[in-house]
Amino acid sequence: MGSPRAEQFSKERTLLNETVMKYADLPLKRFFSLDSQMYREGALSPKVKELLGLVSSLVLRCDDCIKYHVIRCHEEGITSEELEEGLSVGLVVGGSITIPHLRRAFALWDELQEEKNSKSFEA
Amino acid sequence: MGSPRAEQFSKERTLLNETVMKYADLPLKRFFSLDSQMYREGALSPKVKELLGLVSSLVLRCDDCIKYHVIRCHEEGITSEELEEGLSVGLVVGGSITIPHLRRAFALWDELQEEKNSKSFEA
Amino acid sequence: MGSPRAEQFSKERTLLNETVMKYADLPLKRFFSLDSQMYREGALSPKVKELLGLVSSLVLRCDDCIKYHVIRCHEEGITSEELEEGLSVGLVVGGSITIPHLRRAFALWDELQEEKNSKSFEA
Amino acid sequence: MGSPRAEQFSKERTLLNETVMKYADLPLKRFFSLDSQMYREGALSPKVKELLGLVSSLVLRCDDCIKYHVIRCHEEGITSEELEEGLSVGLVVGGSITIPHLRRAFALWDELQEEKNSKSFEA
Amino acid sequence: MGSPRAEQFSKERTLLNETVMKYADLPLKRFFSLDSQMYREGALSPKVKELLGLVSSLVLRCDDCIKYHVIRCHEEGITSEELEEGLSVGLVVGGSITIPHLRRAFALWDELQEEKNSKSFEA
Amino acid sequence: MGSPRAEQFSKERTLLNETVMKYADLPLKRFFSLDSQMYREGALSPKVKELLGLVSSLVLRCDDCIKYHVIRCHEEGITSEELEEGLSVGLVVGGSITIPHLRRAFALWDELQEEKNSKSFEA
Repeated sequence: MGSPRAEQFSKERTLLNETVMKYADLPLKRFFSLDSQMYREGALSPKVKELLGLVSSLVLRCDDCIKYHVIRCHEEGITSEELEEGLSVGLVVGGSITIPHLRRAFALWDELQEEKNSKSFEA
Repeated sequence: MGSPRAEQFSKERTLLNETVMKYADLPLKRFFSLDSQMYREGALSPKVKELLGLVSSLVLRCDDCIKYHVIRCHEEGITSEELEEGLSVGLVVGGSITIPHLRRAFALWDELQEEKNSKSFEA
Repeated sequence: MGSPRAEQFSKERTLLNETVMKYADLPLKRFFSLDSQMYREGALSPKVKELLGLVSSLVLRCDDCIKYHVIRCHEEGITSEELEEGLSVGLVVGGSITIPHLRRAFALWDELQEEKNSKSFEA
Repeated sequence: MGSPRAEQFSKERTLLNETVMKYADLPLKRFFSLDSQMYREGALSPKVKELLGLVSSLVLRCDDCIKYHVIRCHEEGITSEELEEGLSVGLVVGGSITIPHLRRAFALWDELQEEKNSKSFEA
Repeated sequence: MGSPRAEQFSKERTLLNETVMKYADLPLKRFFSLDSQMYREGALSPKVKELLGLVSSLVLRCDDCIKYHVIRCHEEGITSEELEEGLSVGLVVGGSITIPHLRRAFALWDELQEEKNSKSFEA
Repeated sequence: MGSPRAEQFSKERTLLNETVMKYADLPLKRFFSLDSQMYREGALSPKVKELLGLVSSLVLRCDDCIKYHVIRCHEEGITSEELEEGLSVGLVVGGSITIPHLRRAFALWDELQEEKNSKSFEA
């Protein structure tokens, strides 16, 4: 489920979360719980919510957040055309300062697409 | 088409754009043109694109941009539930620092809803 | 409890919060609840936490958030010297771009001090 | 020396600075002094430095800072074409989120130009 | 005095500062001097000032600044509970976009605590 | 034409741009084209425009953008004194949070200067 880079990213994320939880008190734990509730099915689909998370992360220029949402967008079955249009909205809103992040977003997306294609080929 | 506050906002925006255009050279005009192209129907619907514009504006905390996209979301027929879920994603991504903008976004939305309801009543 | 400007600010804030709550679903309500939990007595005093909230608001340049925490710092009995040193840390971290917000922070603080002094005089 | 709006802005700025200085300790005063030193003639001209200040203020989206540098650019004899190109660089770097600030920058610039023209006419 | 990662960070910082100083003129040197003055004992303790620096760095999402202040907080004898509450204020103010930085802050803090514990054990 | 670090940076940038272009639709391509138009000779020289791009990138704290403009400033024949004064304006506007980026900007500049000097020596 994903490319080698995506898997390494998820593994590190899990490990670091364990360190956070070692020190976390109740309010911090509640924030982490709330964060995951926000992307669940509701009036908006998880697909749209992940796009919202991705584009917010792009305009705020956080690489780790972008990676996370690129992987989640891939898992939700978003197409390359949808992802590209979402990122383009973010690019125009956030300006050329987002371009380095946009590049890395597409690089990870490209890896995830190739992984998917090679899996389809094997099957 | 909208509340008094929405109409005043749109009028001022048009006037200020005229001043910009008085000084604008070709690249600046191209940027303004590109900006409007980004929200057109494509792989993503204008509705989803306006939500992306709104939530990006919330996390970047730009009141005028939020107002503009709240009005556009209203015009695209987004429901209160959809708007609320989109803004909530932005709130969790961007933190409590976005709350004053969130308040003003809901205040304008509320006005637009009341206007809509009073019109339905009249009809 | 505060200057006329502080009282008007608090009144408007309450009104706008009512509009937010009219549309809020459970996760949004949880965020608002969590936000208020963060400033309670713990390993750090409310005084230190309010200073953290104030300086964060200064470097992120949110006038409403600054106003809110200036009022709360006043209520927590922070001295002018403590406030000034906190804001100065924020100024150096966040740069001259924070100066317009710094000016308005001191203007509100000054009003709150004068109100306090005139009350002491009356008593 | 400027339009009515520019003069009111400068007057308020001076008044608020007095309030800051009432509370300021030595490091804060040093920051204010350093801030003014940065725009003096050196390897770069004050004209270029004011443009740097203006474009930085645009991408960081601080209206008061933009106003201040628009007035200073006017005083340094920057032309409308130079100002427009500088602001356009900022627009592309910072994205459409800067547009509301760009509009207000041009509105103030336009006022300053009209004031200048009416003075030339009178003379 | 610190973990291997903290020591490497401080070494690189010193080296890079030497390169800056090779090019720095007087105003730039004054800024660096002012920056260090801000965290000295005053009406607020260095402990509180370092927390202010840390939380400002978290909401502005600068990893190097966070690392620097985590190390300084450790040197000032801040407890894990105090650090956690300070970072939690920053998390709620700055939102989930700060989480990757929060994770790395706790990872470095954890290293510094383990180093301290292993030293206590040796003694 | 640059130091080893500058050359590696440019190579990676070109590769990543190819991945972006694999997915890009027309509006995204237009943005990339517009971005490069902004720095061409006009009322302002490319030299001044690159400084504007550099200082904007510093205050927005984007390392890749800073690297790109440091290399471009070097190619445009900007002197060390001019670069230093430009970066100092950015430092005061953007605050100490920009210092880690300022350090890396000078480190790359220093490399480019040494490369230039060793080439002059060889010739």
